[in-house]
Amino acid sequence: MKIVKFGGSSLATGEQVEKVFNIVTSDPERKIVVVSAPGKRHAEDTKVTDLLIDCAKTYLQFGEGKSSFDAVVERYALIARELGLPDKITKKIHDDLLASLNGDKRHPQKYLDAVKASGEDNNAKLITAYFKLRGIEAYYVNPKDAGLIVSDEPGNAQCLPESYEALFELRNRPGVLIFPGFFGYNKEGEVVTFSRSGSDITGSILANGTKADLYENFTDVDAVYSVNPTMVQNPKELRELTYREMRELSYAGFSVFHDEALMPAFRAGIPVNIKNTNYPSKPGTRIVNERENTNGPVIGIASDNGFCSIYVSKYLLNREIGFGRRLLHIIEDFGLSFEHMPSGIDDISIILRQDQMDLAQEENIIKRIKQELQADNVKIEHNLAIIMVVGEGMRRNVGTAARASNALAREGINLEMINQGSSEVSMMFGVKEVDENRAVQALYEEFFVGVPV
Amino acid sequence: MKIVKFGGSSLATGEQVEKVFNIVTSDPERKIVVVSAPGKRHAEDTKVTDLLIDCAKTYLQFGEGKSSFDAVVERYALIARELGLPDKITKKIHDDLLASLNGDKRHPQKYLDAVKASGEDNNAKLITAYFKLRGIEAYYVNPKDAGLIVSDEPGNAQCLPESYEALFELRNRPGVLIFPGFFGYNKEGEVVTFSRSGSDITGSILANGTKADLYENFTDVDAVYSVNPTMVQNPKELRELTYREMRELSYAGFSVFHDEALMPAFRAGIPVNIKNTNYPSKPGTRIVNERENTNGPVIGIASDNGFCSIYVSKYLLNREIGFGRRLLHIIEDFGLSFEHMPSGIDDISIILRQDQMDLAQEENIIKRIKQELQADNVKIEHNLAIIMVVGEGMRRNVGTAARASNALAREGINLEMINQGSSEVSMMFGVKEVDENRAVQALYEEFFVGVPV
Repeated sequence: MKIVKFGGSSLATGEQVEKVFNIVTSDPERKIVVVSAPGKRHAEDTKVTDLLIDCAKTYLQFGEGKSSFDAVVERYALIARELGLPDKITKKIHDDLLASLNGDKRHPQKYLDAVKASGEDNNAKLITAYFKLRGIEAYYVNPKDAGLIVSDEPGNAQCLPESYEALFELRNRPGVLIFPGFFGYNKEGEVVTFSRSGSDITGSILANGTKADLYENFTDVDAVYSVNPTMVQNPKELRELTYREMRELSYAGFSVFHDEALMPAFRAGIPVNIKNTNYPSKPGTRIVNERENTNGPVIGIASDNGFCSIYVSKYLLNREIGFGRRLLHIIEDFGLSFEHMPSGIDDISIILRQDQMDLAQEENIIKRIKQELQADNVKIEHNLAIIMVVGEGMRRNVGTAARASNALAREGINLEMINQGSSEVSMMFGVKEVDENRAVQALYEEFFVGVPV
Repeated sequence: MKIVKFGGSSLATGEQVEKVFNIVTSDPERKIVVVSAPGKRHAEDTKVTDLLIDCAKTYLQFGEGKSSFDAVVERYALIARELGLPDKITKKIHDDLLASLNGDKRHPQKYLDAVKASGEDNNAKLITAYFKLRGIEAYYVNPKDAGLIVSDEPGNAQCLPESYEALFELRNRPGVLIFPGFFGYNKEGEVVTFSRSGSDITGSILANGTKADLYENFTDVDAVYSVNPTMVQNPKELRELTYREMRELSYAGFSVFHDEALMPAFRAGIPVNIKNTNYPSKPGTRIVNERENTNGPVIGIASDNGFCSIYVSKYLLNREIGFGRRLLHIIEDFGLSFEHMPSGIDDISIILRQDQMDLAQEENIIKRIKQELQADNVKIEHNLAIIMVVGEGMRRNVGTAARASNALAREGINLEMINQGSSEVSMMFGVKEVDENRAVQALYEEFFVGVPV
């Protein structure tokens, strides 16, 4: 049994919905279909979810908002017409949305969640109607009825453990089940949405709960690439990568997947297959617990920028028990999340995303570290990029570090930081932001194009 | 004005003391002479300090201990005879030591400190007598009279800040001043010793207090070597290295200097010259604040073993604010001092000296980390070695990491860890202990012997 999830671009038009229909019905294992709200039809288009947010905000402010309301209904109406669905479908969506918009506004966050969630919910109903029209036994499933109970954190719901057992029962229902993504219900029965990319989360939770054999995630790319295609032309497509590799890559700019979304599927050990709705015959990319090591040591290279480093030095620092802990405590007091902490004998650096701090905070941090830890020197360096070189094959592979650092040295790129030794499947290089693109290209060249070593 | 310190082997025999006399009197800037207790005359010999510890323990247990007492006195008597000093010197040392041994035994640690310190104290008196005999205006200086006041931590005294000002007055005294190393007095006027190599500390404190131009540290080696001579034959001697380089090297097995000893001289910016008492014309090695970069990027390679790594992994770990801090808190609760903390996306490793924990503690640590941090996986890996590649010239030097990791890869040595990015003057490699020697040799070959790159 498979969970099949379709993203917004896969459901943006009637033509796209027909592709979805064909994909689902071509494999009887495709039992549960998780749907997003209709997405963009072209680069300049607006997603239904964004229209709904706009609509909800207008209603919150003015108590009404005809033009944005109409814009949402028109998107569904267009799709319904393209699919040859009767007008009553659009009428139902119109009435449902109006009821949502006229709902309880005492808690703006909850109100917003309810309106946003209607995008997926109405789309699930529309698609169910289309499947039925085409003669398929299909049922819309309401997340509350299915038992998808979540924490009461609007916009950031967490699935409660009891949900998984309840969801297992979906296996026993007849027909194809169309399940709206992006939201669940709190214990009071109110709609609460997941964070962005929440339909991926719904699919992952359902895969875990139903103990599915596979979680197919249909989107608009053929595969996950070995490197960002805007940095390297026609990069290698990946057939298979492990959860760990995906996670390390997604950390640094691989945006195919919202990495938190994978957690429930990962915990249950269920493989994920990323596929393209527009080319469903292509194999796509599988995310698995373990893979055979067929490539070289490296499977992917990712990078991200906007990091800074807080450098702290103090003579005989390494003799002070608790220095690192007290330093991290100060960082935490400012509500900052740190990424890495390379250390020398008499110095420690804290690497973190620089957009977390403004100038005044930076000054305060420096002051506190100097005063409380009696540091000799504290300074902040900005505009660093982190490059992740990732691959299960790197584990115990002699010479990967040498190849990577050689490739960077050949390009004359100075290494601000090397962090290797905790993760067995990644190596991290810190460079200045201005060197980021060249560094990624040099590493791609080394590990994927192949040069004499 | 120079502070000149002589180690135990430089004062082990009358012949050695004569060398000391010649060195001191050959340069009128050599004003203050810090002396250790007589050290080993040959590899199987016992240092006076160790004889004294033995003696004190015997007295503590039995109230007397003639044979060990005689052994100490005989060492001084022999030196006095060799130097042609009158018997009354030996008699005075005999009486002084007996008084120490029959002193207050209510606090065994303080008693031990007083007996140990007599080794340096009596030697300073003996050497003063010899200088006088040779017609030099020389004075024994008692640390209490000079104002060397320390914290009340037997065996681990810390110099109190007020001492430095008091010690400055020594500049105004006439003649050559012979100052016993290794101890000061607490505020109650009791003897308290520094940690081992405490005479180096005394010299460093005096250099700071008197604002000396140079701190000459005479020992039994010609120079600091670029690498451990037991690992590489005839390694390069270093003419000059910076405090930072010394500190990074001394961390990992460079035993010429007890690194804490350098702190007072470092803080005052006073250069240290390590020289050989037996070949005083040789330039030795200077430790300075800044040096000209004449060599290649690397000045020295050091290594140490006996490390272990506590590996902790948890999915989405990097999202948890405070995870690193809480992990370090647990480490600290066990009284453990950690060395490094490399981190991946979903994992952190803590590198620490493994002799700090026994098996039961290791199990408790693993249990607490699993429970309190809900970690997915916690494991401890033993028998790691850390290799430090050090040099001011590495700062902003493109390609040093590549050369180092290449050299290790050529030898087929797997890198367990790379830590670079905080210290600008060092790079750290973690390898298995079994690979330590080969790794050091390969790195020496790369940076000092020179191979085509």
